[in-house]
Amino acid sequence: MLTPSIERLVGELARLPGIGPRSAQRLAFHLMKDPSTRVPALAEALTAVAERVALCSVCFAFAEDGTCPICSDPRRDPTLMCAVEEPSAIPAIDRTHEFRGRFHVLGGALSPLDGIDPDDLTIDQLDRRIEQDGVRELVIATNPTMQGEATALYLADLMRDRVRVTRLASGLPVGADVEHADELTLGRALLGRQEL
Amino acid sequence: MLTPSIERLVGELARLPGIGPRSAQRLAFHLMKDPSTRVPALAEALTAVAERVALCSVCFAFAEDGTCPICSDPRRDPTLMCAVEEPSAIPAIDRTHEFRGRFHVLGGALSPLDGIDPDDLTIDQLDRRIEQDGVRELVIATNPTMQGEATALYLADLMRDRVRVTRLASGLPVGADVEHADELTLGRALLGRQEL
Repeated sequence: MLTPSIERLVGELARLPGIGPRSAQRLAFHLMKDPSTRVPALAEALTAVAERVALCSVCFAFAEDGTCPICSDPRRDPTLMCAVEEPSAIPAIDRTHEFRGRFHVLGGALSPLDGIDPDDLTIDQLDRRIEQDGVRELVIATNPTMQGEATALYLADLMRDRVRVTRLASGLPVGADVEHADELTLGRALLGRQEL
Repeated sequence: MLTPSIERLVGELARLPGIGPRSAQRLAFHLMKDPSTRVPALAEALTAVAERVALCSVCFAFAEDGTCPICSDPRRDPTLMCAVEEPSAIPAIDRTHEFRGRFHVLGGALSPLDGIDPDDLTIDQLDRRIEQDGVRELVIATNPTMQGEATALYLADLMRDRVRVTRLASGLPVGADVEHADELTLGRALLGRQEL
């Protein structure tokens, strides 16, 4: 009942996270309201991304001309480094305006069960950057999951003799209430309690 | 902090309905996890739609080869016709499996305040199809809004001497409760009450 091209577009849209078949169809019909401008604009934006974007040769975030905007920015402190699992963590941390150093994308987290060992992450490259840039502090911003914690501990053991290693605080999110917090989070919040 | 191409892609994605700047960024990063296959697949699906899809020469739904899948399907009863505002209403009605006739896309609803008059809709073409196909019943499935109702009344006045004209029932949606129904809907449900 949909034409083959629209069916295919709906299928591609439905593969995006958080977009089910109904939303995909709604998006496709929305795009078709103005197929001569809206559709090519999105298609061209996608093609440009596929052609131009690669991984930064320094930090493994996304980059267009070899190095990413952050690694090319002389105002970012190269002696303060934040290790993240994926490039998508970088804009989230940057929006806080609490971190003016540089980033290093590990490319995932350690997960022996899934066959992800230290060699599969960019740990050697992180090691070299810490040496070359004279990094003072490594902020580990892996996710607060089992794999993210394992990665943080591994990195801390590896680096703590040479550099100050810190970890993002874990605890109650702003706006949450104690009554409904899950016990792991609440346990972390207690362990990490601070003097007032 | 995002590269220019990714920024542009996020901008295009954020123009889609129901997708805010955060979701757009999440979608872009998701696509970038596999830029060599996921991104071109979506770009090509969009390009194909822009190049191949046009309006059906008969009913004004979307079509790829002159006539849409429904108008080309000999099993659909040509003497039973359903008038809708937009092509997006067709799959919704078709999924009910309660209608085996053909469709006619009006291209909107009458709205004198917005300057949308009968001439701006495909009413002449509907008129001709009713004549040529020997239509027995015209089911008006415009939206239950002021504009949709006005369009339904206009069409009914125009066509009722030649063809049986019906309108989708208006009332409580399945699963709703009477207590929380808005008064207009509840009023319609009362006016349209049926014998048990």
